[in-house]
Amino acid sequence: MSTIQVNLGARSYPIHIERGLVDQAGAYFLSVFGQCAAAVVTDDNVAPLYLDRVMASLTQADVRAVSITLPHGERTKCLDCLTQLYTFFSEHHITRKDVVVALGGGVMGDLAGLAAATWLRGVRLMQIPTTLLAQVDSSVGGKVAVDLPQGKNLVGAFWQPSLVLADPDTLQTLTPAYWRDGLGEVVKYGCIGDEPLFRLLEKDAPMGREGLMQDIDEILHRCISYKANVVEQDEHDTGLRMTLNFGHTLAHAVETVQHYEGYRHGEAVAIGMAAITRLSEERGLTESGTAQRLIALEQALSLPTELPEIPKEDLLHAMTQDKKNAGDTLTVILLRRIGACYLHKTTTKFFRHG
Amino acid sequence: MSTIQVNLGARSYPIHIERGLVDQAGAYFLSVFGQCAAAVVTDDNVAPLYLDRVMASLTQADVRAVSITLPHGERTKCLDCLTQLYTFFSEHHITRKDVVVALGGGVMGDLAGLAAATWLRGVRLMQIPTTLLAQVDSSVGGKVAVDLPQGKNLVGAFWQPSLVLADPDTLQTLTPAYWRDGLGEVVKYGCIGDEPLFRLLEKDAPMGREGLMQDIDEILHRCISYKANVVEQDEHDTGLRMTLNFGHTLAHAVETVQHYEGYRHGEAVAIGMAAITRLSEERGLTESGTAQRLIALEQALSLPTELPEIPKEDLLHAMTQDKKNAGDTLTVILLRRIGACYLHKTTTKFFRHG
Repeated sequence: MSTIQVNLGARSYPIHIERGLVDQAGAYFLSVFGQCAAAVVTDDNVAPLYLDRVMASLTQADVRAVSITLPHGERTKCLDCLTQLYTFFSEHHITRKDVVVALGGGVMGDLAGLAAATWLRGVRLMQIPTTLLAQVDSSVGGKVAVDLPQGKNLVGAFWQPSLVLADPDTLQTLTPAYWRDGLGEVVKYGCIGDEPLFRLLEKDAPMGREGLMQDIDEILHRCISYKANVVEQDEHDTGLRMTLNFGHTLAHAVETVQHYEGYRHGEAVAIGMAAITRLSEERGLTESGTAQRLIALEQALSLPTELPEIPKEDLLHAMTQDKKNAGDTLTVILLRRIGACYLHKTTTKFFRHG
Repeated sequence: MSTIQVNLGARSYPIHIERGLVDQAGAYFLSVFGQCAAAVVTDDNVAPLYLDRVMASLTQADVRAVSITLPHGERTKCLDCLTQLYTFFSEHHITRKDVVVALGGGVMGDLAGLAAATWLRGVRLMQIPTTLLAQVDSSVGGKVAVDLPQGKNLVGAFWQPSLVLADPDTLQTLTPAYWRDGLGEVVKYGCIGDEPLFRLLEKDAPMGREGLMQDIDEILHRCISYKANVVEQDEHDTGLRMTLNFGHTLAHAVETVQHYEGYRHGEAVAIGMAAITRLSEERGLTESGTAQRLIALEQALSLPTELPEIPKEDLLHAMTQDKKNAGDTLTVILLRRIGACYLHKTTTKFFRHG
């Protein structure tokens, strides 16, 4: 059991990491929120695996708990599903004193999080992330959103949870694709700020997923600690938090061109990290040997490292459309070496002659 | 010209009160926001009167400005119209650096405000309130929301504007109903915390609307100052801000029973203030003579003071359904005397034997 405290003044909260936490949801809920109701939001992938256990734990703690199960997948992160949640809250008389519980991966966290941020002008949120990606990334830091037909995450808020329970046992049930999805982000943390984590991954990778699961508590702790620290310094994403986007400029472009139906996010990030590090190393902006070491780890983890066959012009066009890129200029995150990164102002030309 | 600064740390902002401000929107915009785009949101009551002037002022200041005009009225405060605004922002490439401008009454402020709070996880907001109610109440303090079929203001956020321009000249074009709508809230400020304002209203009331318009700058300044002060001490409505709800428990019940198609909000508040003050005076909870003085002013302002013919049970039922009333207990705001109020914990029985 380890606990990471995210220090954000009145919006501070603990993240607990421990095997079996799913069955202790009720006790933790009670200790943080006191007597009030829980509106549990989950999807049809997660419900058969964990919903009964979470509801049983809440009920045992004498918490009035109601639940709703939505279809899984990115398409659920939409305004229609958000409206469904509002109706659900209304039907079950969820008041300002009650709590929304997001049980599942990033989609559930983002959707239920935005519902919590806007229901009655904001109610408290508890995250029980059940995927690697959600545990190391989306459940921490308060970014919540839904997609529009016009683009991803266009409607959202910054809404910090009041409690996060990360149960590593839930990762056992992930499909290989969901597992890789999270691994991309795990490697990212090693790259941008935690060389010991990178080395741990290098050590475990040859043993495959089982090797990593032996050290999963430490891996989660290191990733979440890093993100929590960045979020504490830049809650609203106006500066330092940008470093978390290492590999993401190209990743978003790949995902956009593939209409989010090709590589998964973590895989696209793996490609993006490899590609930009090759480019920056060629230009003397990164210590030599860095790209090779990164690509070797990604390959050992069965992550893709090469751009798919997409016309380069399409990728560049997608980059200029990205809401994070203000006009022609572009701030990219480059590695100094494994474990150290920096911001670099450039234009999309950076990617043109790769 | 007077300016009230709302002090909320990083979210502080100025409220300017001056005749003719509508034509200076561009200059103020530029001085606060710098070079960026303005997305002006208004309704078809306000557009013919003020939209061209605001757009001309923005354009003259070299601000890229786009506008959307929605139907007027409470029905526009809905999720569908919110979605329309997102589409509009997307089509016009409104980025994180740009500004949403709410031009109109409370409906526009609430709707455009929520759109600003959630577009790209939050963009800056400028309020140009054009009704008395919006100038003294809804444009100040950051409460933004839309209604659901299940109830009013169920979906929303706290999102402070970065700039508010209150132009008293816009009040000249209000219909008598809209004018009374604001007057109810103006009287409220006098009751709960500003006896000199109450006396000023008593002095002006016999001369009708023109009398009040002669002192409108001072009236606006006093109301907004009071609200700003309360908001500074209780931004998220967890305590002191509750005093702003004087007269509102019964008002909301009346509005609910009438399906928001009977009395306007300010009128319902006038009825609610008179009724609760009669009751509290009868019980020795308010100095004697207070109700009479309040009712006399309301009558002089052509505000209603008597409950419409509604079965008392219906009102009580509506009260227990109000999201602000946690279960059986109810916190009401009572006057000590004109200009001084306090919180009083009770139950709906308080209203039963009136």
